[in-house]
Amino acid sequence: MEHTYRLVIACPDRVGIVAKVTTFLATYNGWILEASHHADSSLGWFFMRNEIKAESLPFDLKSFHIAFEPIAREFNMRWHISDSNVKKRIVLMASKESHCLADLLYRSHASELEGEIVAVISNHGDLRRMVDWHDIPYHHVPVTAENKPEAFARVEQLVDEYAADVVVLARYMQIIPASLCERYAGRIINIHHSFLPSFAGARPYHQAFARGVKLIGATCHYVTQDLDEGPIIEQDVIRVSHSDDIEELVRLGRDVEKSVLARGLRYHLEDRVIVQENKTVVFA
Amino acid sequence: MEHTYRLVIACPDRVGIVAKVTTFLATYNGWILEASHHADSSLGWFFMRNEIKAESLPFDLKSFHIAFEPIAREFNMRWHISDSNVKKRIVLMASKESHCLADLLYRSHASELEGEIVAVISNHGDLRRMVDWHDIPYHHVPVTAENKPEAFARVEQLVDEYAADVVVLARYMQIIPASLCERYAGRIINIHHSFLPSFAGARPYHQAFARGVKLIGATCHYVTQDLDEGPIIEQDVIRVSHSDDIEELVRLGRDVEKSVLARGLRYHLEDRVIVQENKTVVFA
Amino acid sequence: MEHTYRLVIACPDRVGIVAKVTTFLATYNGWILEASHHADSSLGWFFMRNEIKAESLPFDLKSFHIAFEPIAREFNMRWHISDSNVKKRIVLMASKESHCLADLLYRSHASELEGEIVAVISNHGDLRRMVDWHDIPYHHVPVTAENKPEAFARVEQLVDEYAADVVVLARYMQIIPASLCERYAGRIINIHHSFLPSFAGARPYHQAFARGVKLIGATCHYVTQDLDEGPIIEQDVIRVSHSDDIEELVRLGRDVEKSVLARGLRYHLEDRVIVQENKTVVFA
Amino acid sequence: MEHTYRLVIACPDRVGIVAKVTTFLATYNGWILEASHHADSSLGWFFMRNEIKAESLPFDLKSFHIAFEPIAREFNMRWHISDSNVKKRIVLMASKESHCLADLLYRSHASELEGEIVAVISNHGDLRRMVDWHDIPYHHVPVTAENKPEAFARVEQLVDEYAADVVVLARYMQIIPASLCERYAGRIINIHHSFLPSFAGARPYHQAFARGVKLIGATCHYVTQDLDEGPIIEQDVIRVSHSDDIEELVRLGRDVEKSVLARGLRYHLEDRVIVQENKTVVFA
Repeated sequence: MEHTYRLVIACPDRVGIVAKVTTFLATYNGWILEASHHADSSLGWFFMRNEIKAESLPFDLKSFHIAFEPIAREFNMRWHISDSNVKKRIVLMASKESHCLADLLYRSHASELEGEIVAVISNHGDLRRMVDWHDIPYHHVPVTAENKPEAFARVEQLVDEYAADVVVLARYMQIIPASLCERYAGRIINIHHSFLPSFAGARPYHQAFARGVKLIGATCHYVTQDLDEGPIIEQDVIRVSHSDDIEELVRLGRDVEKSVLARGLRYHLEDRVIVQENKTVVFA
Repeated sequence: MEHTYRLVIACPDRVGIVAKVTTFLATYNGWILEASHHADSSLGWFFMRNEIKAESLPFDLKSFHIAFEPIAREFNMRWHISDSNVKKRIVLMASKESHCLADLLYRSHASELEGEIVAVISNHGDLRRMVDWHDIPYHHVPVTAENKPEAFARVEQLVDEYAADVVVLARYMQIIPASLCERYAGRIINIHHSFLPSFAGARPYHQAFARGVKLIGATCHYVTQDLDEGPIIEQDVIRVSHSDDIEELVRLGRDVEKSVLARGLRYHLEDRVIVQENKTVVFA
Repeated sequence: MEHTYRLVIACPDRVGIVAKVTTFLATYNGWILEASHHADSSLGWFFMRNEIKAESLPFDLKSFHIAFEPIAREFNMRWHISDSNVKKRIVLMASKESHCLADLLYRSHASELEGEIVAVISNHGDLRRMVDWHDIPYHHVPVTAENKPEAFARVEQLVDEYAADVVVLARYMQIIPASLCERYAGRIINIHHSFLPSFAGARPYHQAFARGVKLIGATCHYVTQDLDEGPIIEQDVIRVSHSDDIEELVRLGRDVEKSVLARGLRYHLEDRVIVQENKTVVFA
Repeated sequence: MEHTYRLVIACPDRVGIVAKVTTFLATYNGWILEASHHADSSLGWFFMRNEIKAESLPFDLKSFHIAFEPIAREFNMRWHISDSNVKKRIVLMASKESHCLADLLYRSHASELEGEIVAVISNHGDLRRMVDWHDIPYHHVPVTAENKPEAFARVEQLVDEYAADVVVLARYMQIIPASLCERYAGRIINIHHSFLPSFAGARPYHQAFARGVKLIGATCHYVTQDLDEGPIIEQDVIRVSHSDDIEELVRLGRDVEKSVLARGLRYHLEDRVIVQENKTVVFA
């Protein structure tokens, strides 16, 4: 894996953005390995991601910021640059179901994830042994109707202490309080076990079975205060038939949930996702 | 294509149904080419489709009915038998968009459809020339806010006159009146340009664009009085991205609509679909 | 999960097979939960799988055999019956790559597999710690150019000792000797990391990259003496593009390999696969 | 559809290419609507496609060439620019099978293709009536073992007379002579009815059936002198099972062939494909 800087930009569209940015890069001998652009004519916005050989530039991230800031100001950019060598810190949250958790733990173990799982938080104790094998701290924070505020204060404290760059709800079956959603806007990722907007809310496989759909799906999205309404990062589906009962839908759905969450998280970790209003640009 | 009889059965589940039916068939030397069974334990119902070499049986359909009736009664069967040599009569309905119509006309021309398109009814004149090439009668029945009852009386009259076995709404942009839905229950097939239940109603591609989904789809279903709520026969999706504007979603969606409608209709024409409550068993 | 017997039959096709079998079942009050039939007109063979409520029958497997044998003889059946409560014994073989192994271990842990992983054999020691967590014996049997016969004698001895019903090559990078292939015909399952027959042999992702294909795939098949030529159980593909280098093809391919092997093995464990000549009937 | 210029570039990779090109464009106020870059590190080449609002530039194509030429020389570019308002001229070649031809004719009729079908050449007369409806000239050029050189001289003459930008073999069942392949290198597109490199050559569905594959596919590629070996533009597959006989594979395959050819041709017409050695970069 090459050591790269990722320069991610969103700004109002106009002539000359790419010229300005790439001339800046070329001036400092920056070697572009991969570039993706998107001009959204309905919004009048421009989006851009550049992956640059780190060693080709004379900058560390701090000096890059100073050097690039005037251009960013000129074009009213929302932007950031990240270093592929600085792994993002991931806090996983789970309940009792293990499939998404196990999948991400394995991918981390196999060095497939560009990030480090620094802790697991669960409202149950069931998955501790699995997490222990990976030498990752496991925090059991029970959540009940009564202790909700204290429980989530504890969750928030843990997320802060671990300096999480991203929180992944790997089938965490509790609703995240609005305050946490807001503080970590764009940094909490959920996997919903339906092809949203179909079957939002509880027991989506039961809803899908009742409606008799011929495909079931899963949706990876950023968490906002509006449950199951946040910006969608990734979705996928799998074919089912009349012969699949609910238990079978659940079994088939697990595989889709795992792969959709893994892909969505990967896009996030590699700085491939830009949120604009309630949608995402994903430079996959 | 072999000449076959298709015996399609739905009945309350119990021991001995298959034995009874297949012993009946074997008694008369009936050669089963293809058989599909489904026991739905949640409903307690059993579904069965047998495709039998026509010449292996001593019966025409009428004598088959007489011979089989006691068994059907014994097991409280809802059943029918059809002859693969008797092509089903299809009436297509369309508005201005030609892609589904053209696709079905081509498949009919290429002898891919097990049915005969006997007429096209449209509330516009645009597609007449295309239909003319196929030597199929084209009926222009304009529909306005004012003439709706008369227009649909005319439609119903035409459908009756053509002795339609099935009516296909190939992007027909009018709501079918309840009376017609009821009279032709299980015989009117619609293609909806979304992955239902997502984006029911008008302008689904606009809704999909606004929500930022990563897959768009189409749904082939039987028409009931509840708009877009009828039993689903077939669905499929296609991947889209942030770079696809609405025009592009529409273009990509057309290909999904065509293939989903063609598959759904095919299942219907080959007696592969059984409606039970608001769902379908599809022996694909 | 219901306790069932699975009656799987292959025989020359003629009139009356289903009638005979299902009448036999009905005579003893056998409740058929699921049935699949296939008549292959090119071979003139008939294939059938019946899943029957175990408690509805008065038989254990041994008395079933005695009772059914005359019918089997009459129709020249190749047949077997299995008990869903008797888990098949699986021996996994792996080398250094962990993705398929880890996936199957997880599915076993999550009770998704209808079988019991009784041992892992590897020509390397790398994966021992992963297997240990699952409390499954791990046998390190190194294979070199020199010790091949002894090594595979040891493998065969282990497979015998564990009374394996099925041996799964979960990216085991050694060629299985002909004698073992023969003794365990139809019971050794391999995952090949290409969409066979494309890119048989070594380094299929390198071959795929060189050819510039737009989809890569994986193939689950029974192992025969002809390398990569055995009967195919399951295949799948994933889309790739010019922007994916070999490392990326390998990464994307791993997910396809995992899911194709898991599906293929599942079909085998549930007695859904019948081998006929060099092809399979899969009642999925 | 916006009026655009498409600037497509391939050159040895180095620092500063994008800066140079986009600064050139920005200097003349060129508004970039869409841009795609690809750096192939194994080849050391860089590929780029820019879609620019035509009216934002002060150039016609000729003056663009003059102005851009020094940059192209400096970077050793292989490049071209095209005008979205100048529809590419398509010559279709077909034999007796109509599905690909009918599909492309319909897409042209529906204004889905960015190109104009200027003629159809066939070695049979069967499809004339279909082509006539579209008011497109149909040339029947019979090909026999004896007249091959004369027949293809006539084909070449027609292709020249029609000033074809691209020749599409829409299931044209004759081998194109080497001389024509060479003269029209990168401009003859074929659809092969298998997932290449599997089942190259004749009767691929028969080969697929014999091998018992679980997916069948189609491949759209540029024609070279090496039959079925040219650079692949697009591929896709569809699931099949033991219950599908050859006739059914052919039927299912037709739909894949149609959509793969339509997509591949679309990429070509929109200047999204760059051939490099025996592979393609496709900026889809």
